[in-house]
Amino acid sequence: MGHTYPGATVPFGSVQLSPETDTISYELNGKYNGDVYKYCAGYRYEDKTITGFSHTHFSGTGHSDLGDFLIMPTVGPLKLNPGTATHPEKGYRSRFSHEDETAEAGYYKVKLQDYNILAELTATTRVGAHRYTFPKSDQAHIILDLMAGIYNYDDKNVWTYVRVADNQTITGYRQTNGWARTRTVYFAMKFSKPFKSYGQKNYDGKRVYNGFWRKFDQTKNFPEIAGKQIRMYFDFNTEENEAIEIQMAISPVSQENALENLNKEIGQLSFDQIKAKAQEDWDEELSKIVIKGTEDQKINFYTAMYHTFINPTIYMDVNGEYKGLDQNTHQAKDFTNYTTFSLWDTYRALHPYFNIIQPKRNNDMVKSMLAHYDQSSLKMLPIWSHYANENWCMSGYHSVSVVADAIIKGNYTGDAKAALMACVATANKRNYEGIGDYIDKGYIPVEKNGTSVSNTLEYAYDDWAIAQLAKHLGETEIYNQFIKRSENWKNNFDKTIGFMRPRLADGSFKKDFDILSTHGQGFIEGNSWNYSFFVPHNPDGLIQHMGGKKKFASKLDKLFSMHLPDEFFADTEDITREGIIGGYVHGNEPAHHVAYFYNWAGEAWKTQKQVRHILEMQYKSTPDGLGGNDDTGQMSAWYILSSLGFYPVAPGSEDYAIGSPAVENAVLHLENGKNFEIEAVNQKPENVYVEKILLNGKEIKNFTLKHSEIMNGGKITFYMSNKPKK
Amino acid sequence: MGHTYPGATVPFGSVQLSPETDTISYELNGKYNGDVYKYCAGYRYEDKTITGFSHTHFSGTGHSDLGDFLIMPTVGPLKLNPGTATHPEKGYRSRFSHEDETAEAGYYKVKLQDYNILAELTATTRVGAHRYTFPKSDQAHIILDLMAGIYNYDDKNVWTYVRVADNQTITGYRQTNGWARTRTVYFAMKFSKPFKSYGQKNYDGKRVYNGFWRKFDQTKNFPEIAGKQIRMYFDFNTEENEAIEIQMAISPVSQENALENLNKEIGQLSFDQIKAKAQEDWDEELSKIVIKGTEDQKINFYTAMYHTFINPTIYMDVNGEYKGLDQNTHQAKDFTNYTTFSLWDTYRALHPYFNIIQPKRNNDMVKSMLAHYDQSSLKMLPIWSHYANENWCMSGYHSVSVVADAIIKGNYTGDAKAALMACVATANKRNYEGIGDYIDKGYIPVEKNGTSVSNTLEYAYDDWAIAQLAKHLGETEIYNQFIKRSENWKNNFDKTIGFMRPRLADGSFKKDFDILSTHGQGFIEGNSWNYSFFVPHNPDGLIQHMGGKKKFASKLDKLFSMHLPDEFFADTEDITREGIIGGYVHGNEPAHHVAYFYNWAGEAWKTQKQVRHILEMQYKSTPDGLGGNDDTGQMSAWYILSSLGFYPVAPGSEDYAIGSPAVENAVLHLENGKNFEIEAVNQKPENVYVEKILLNGKEIKNFTLKHSEIMNGGKITFYMSNKPKK
Repeated sequence: MGHTYPGATVPFGSVQLSPETDTISYELNGKYNGDVYKYCAGYRYEDKTITGFSHTHFSGTGHSDLGDFLIMPTVGPLKLNPGTATHPEKGYRSRFSHEDETAEAGYYKVKLQDYNILAELTATTRVGAHRYTFPKSDQAHIILDLMAGIYNYDDKNVWTYVRVADNQTITGYRQTNGWARTRTVYFAMKFSKPFKSYGQKNYDGKRVYNGFWRKFDQTKNFPEIAGKQIRMYFDFNTEENEAIEIQMAISPVSQENALENLNKEIGQLSFDQIKAKAQEDWDEELSKIVIKGTEDQKINFYTAMYHTFINPTIYMDVNGEYKGLDQNTHQAKDFTNYTTFSLWDTYRALHPYFNIIQPKRNNDMVKSMLAHYDQSSLKMLPIWSHYANENWCMSGYHSVSVVADAIIKGNYTGDAKAALMACVATANKRNYEGIGDYIDKGYIPVEKNGTSVSNTLEYAYDDWAIAQLAKHLGETEIYNQFIKRSENWKNNFDKTIGFMRPRLADGSFKKDFDILSTHGQGFIEGNSWNYSFFVPHNPDGLIQHMGGKKKFASKLDKLFSMHLPDEFFADTEDITREGIIGGYVHGNEPAHHVAYFYNWAGEAWKTQKQVRHILEMQYKSTPDGLGGNDDTGQMSAWYILSSLGFYPVAPGSEDYAIGSPAVENAVLHLENGKNFEIEAVNQKPENVYVEKILLNGKEIKNFTLKHSEIMNGGKITFYMSNKPKK
Repeated sequence: MGHTYPGATVPFGSVQLSPETDTISYELNGKYNGDVYKYCAGYRYEDKTITGFSHTHFSGTGHSDLGDFLIMPTVGPLKLNPGTATHPEKGYRSRFSHEDETAEAGYYKVKLQDYNILAELTATTRVGAHRYTFPKSDQAHIILDLMAGIYNYDDKNVWTYVRVADNQTITGYRQTNGWARTRTVYFAMKFSKPFKSYGQKNYDGKRVYNGFWRKFDQTKNFPEIAGKQIRMYFDFNTEENEAIEIQMAISPVSQENALENLNKEIGQLSFDQIKAKAQEDWDEELSKIVIKGTEDQKINFYTAMYHTFINPTIYMDVNGEYKGLDQNTHQAKDFTNYTTFSLWDTYRALHPYFNIIQPKRNNDMVKSMLAHYDQSSLKMLPIWSHYANENWCMSGYHSVSVVADAIIKGNYTGDAKAALMACVATANKRNYEGIGDYIDKGYIPVEKNGTSVSNTLEYAYDDWAIAQLAKHLGETEIYNQFIKRSENWKNNFDKTIGFMRPRLADGSFKKDFDILSTHGQGFIEGNSWNYSFFVPHNPDGLIQHMGGKKKFASKLDKLFSMHLPDEFFADTEDITREGIIGGYVHGNEPAHHVAYFYNWAGEAWKTQKQVRHILEMQYKSTPDGLGGNDDTGQMSAWYILSSLGFYPVAPGSEDYAIGSPAVENAVLHLENGKNFEIEAVNQKPENVYVEKILLNGKEIKNFTLKHSEIMNGGKITFYMSNKPKK
């Protein structure tokens, strides 16, 4: 359920070249199949066949799209349909075994059993590189399936255009109406060897070409191809062990830009050189944190780190052009444009983590979000955006948190005032998701909005982040307005039961209500038990509402120890049974900060214990190692920060809550040239408790580490113990 | 059947803003309707209702496309469907009367009876300007129907995107798969007055937006719109006689370019100023030839001239960018890019006429054709191309004639050698329309190609044009090769019957064959009677094959006097009964040069008589004044040149065959600053015969006028008589 993929990509690369194991068959019946959820990343470890290798993939999402430009090498009689999992021999797909499969950062390799072809993949930022080692054959084919895709139902493919420029070069584009409503990906593709012939079949059920007469045979060797549903093939003769390399560049803007991306990023590089470069890039990025720990910890830690450096992805050509939300081509000035912002997830830990370890990229991401705002007719910052589209997924307007956190932490080089105004405009979009009612009433009536409680709570936090930014910029009036709005969480808190509870327009609380249920009563990806703790910006206020520290702590205890009945578990989204601890749902995000709340209740040792427990339970170095979707890196960012001993409970604050480091030692090599070292003395699996914390020799007593204290460099030393320090 | 439209355009303008009278209803049943042919130009004089005003139209074609961005003003309850011709009240269309309708060059006006709205249209090159004068209403609407279009069947609409930038400005694009397979038109639209509200309805039968949840009401005042089948509306309050102006710019490249086109071409101009400018432009172009003649002649002549200055159309933004056949954006260097090349028609008289009266534009058109060649993966010059697409319509490869004629006449400023090589490459595309067989056997076997005889004959002429160009450039080898190919017409000539006749692969002539039938035996838009004279480049050779001058002339006599039985008339395409004279089909093109053939038979007086007869019979100043499609100006160019007394029988030659001028006097104001005057002494309707011709005082005896003799300026004097000079 991690929804990560094993294929080849470089850090934050535009191309994610990875095997598909079955998504393609879903478009055969033309209807939405619930299983599409399973195939968010295109690859399922339990599948036995590979349909091909496509160039774009989300990492860890709970909703799907992409899967562009599927390439499959075959030998023997040409088959242009993908076949099925149960009858792979009926189509071009091939069986494979995990024993013949290797996945490294920037490199993937698998033997395609049906064809005795060794498939290898690597990538640059904008180019996917393939190497297929064939047996001897006079019927070797490379299939380019332009029908294939992820989320491939309901008429997703809008249009496809292909131009065969010469017998080694193809350019074109593919336009889809998937999760992204209006998405076009351009490509340029080069073969290392001329094909001897090629062809295409159109599956539109209509004429492929509107010529008044069919003057050519347009199915064979005809170089100008267009239609909705097209599959192409290229024929070769191969010698035993002959490798054919393919490089496919993508562009958000044009075929010409794709070609330029190809030429600039690849030039004369061989597959092995591209692979070496990809792995160097990964080494450089991954060595920004050097840890000491067990082998298993290292695997988990660097796997997590790998997953945090995939999304958001670069969405810009080498010449600086990209497609904007307004569907115009823009030239990025002084920044690199990024896309794939799963902000409901990533504002929590991933972007704060970037503010430590990738501040330059995070600056660019914030600039990309502000560019989105400028291009938006609605004048809103992104909610969940990808590929020049807004898909409006999930609650809140968490861009504001990312913007505020980056500016407050000094990582934004753009116009901070303009950024604040974009946050304010977004938060004041009255006709979006109950914001009008939220402003007027201080909460969103449950009858008016499906996620009324989640929205109110998340808006309140987001408003607090806006207030912090306003304070930082000396905008007192905005501060006053938004700090007041940040208290709106109180309006959904039912003191009589001590939980967050949906409220009706008349002001009364909803009668028919279950604190364990997620759906149908104003929550999303979390029930009231989890969301009742969603006041990250004001734990003290929440503690007061919940009856003081003692009651608060025992409520937390109950959360982590209760049993969630099956009926309510079925209600949760995007997680497995392993993704929960008691009633605490780690596989979803709303409670990600909750383990750290014990600190405020004066029971920090419980934070320490729970954090270590979660780290151990929820992250495993196995194919099913994640208890829920990785959520474009948020789950992994939680792992990394918590392993290092601290967590940003309320992004927008400079404070990190201290937990319990899992590593023995870690050195953060910061972009400012300084190093920050984490040392855990007496680190052992059972020594989950922290006895003493020294920052550069000075004791920390409030379980709080400041951002500046990290960025200034130095050393934090944890003295670990198997006994809680009460 | 002229398939011209009454709306507003400027000379060679990108925008042709014109009323639609019923095409829109055809998409309601979703199926191809044969009547779509009738609506090539969007407007039928006999229709009683107008569905709206759209921005792009072909003039005079026999196949349809375009009809982009239909705008309709209404008052009263909003109706978003167009209604039907029989029940206009059920939709937004309106009844109208020709009494309330005015069409001028660059201006169109009509009263929309159902709404008491006066609609006025004018244009610049890239902008359509609307002025709608409303009654008082608090329910005034402007409908923007993005579903509507011409040739609107079989899933034509691929995608539509609209962005409401502010309450007066809209941008977007529309992508279609019509006659042009892959066509995108971008737009930018400005209202003179802010709309009070707006909305849209999507007719896709699927979700308009793929948002995970529907967070906004996307049908009202939602500014980011996309889908396949969309209709929008904009609401206003209007005072009595309040005019709302709309300006809509189009671009082949981007929304930004459309906006730039709008700003550069319109700026602060009012509707009246735009109209005045459009009419000045027309005056300037139309005064390039000043004639004396009857009022009816003037109407016919300037109507014809107007129709010759519509197509090809400018296809390039004010910044010089245009979309190429390769679907990339190109920057035009040193030329204006044109599109809509109906070359089978227009190589005959329209482009030769441009070489006299529009040489600069014709140079640009040839450059546009060579750009098409460069962008073509196939490496072919255009056959019938429009909007960055090739639709492959009709026989031959007549681009080569246009290229050769322009270069030989000194009107091409590009690389002439490269142009020749493009002609040669096109003529050697072996897998196109029987060219391989044509090269190998000297003819195309009828069983292999549907238009085998037409193709062989037209290729032979085209090859002659290539040979002339090669000679002009001193390329002897190419000359020898193509002058030999130009004799291939002989291979389809059956001496035993004296007609062109389809031939089988085994060399024999097809047995089952009718010289009167057009279809199913290798001909297109002309039967063997007409095509048997299709040797424009070698009349003497044809005369010899037909048994000498006398037999040849009497065969021509028979052509013009025979009766074409109904069964065979039904066979002809694109013409009415009025479009034929005997068996001579003027409404189609293959015999356009034939009346001039009497000159070669030593019976020039019959040329004179027939030309004057055709001019009178085939062109009338009435709504049904043309006997066939105007064919993007070819029919009109025939009229103009023949009215002036000469015609280019074989473009690629500098010679014009002299016929009989219909005007009393004409002065051609040439771009080189010189004037060429045509004087017809004793001009009368019955004086159709030419007694004597003086060129600058020197008698012409061979009924031939040279291109240079026109371009050097001077005067040709015809002495007219009612008696043939045998």
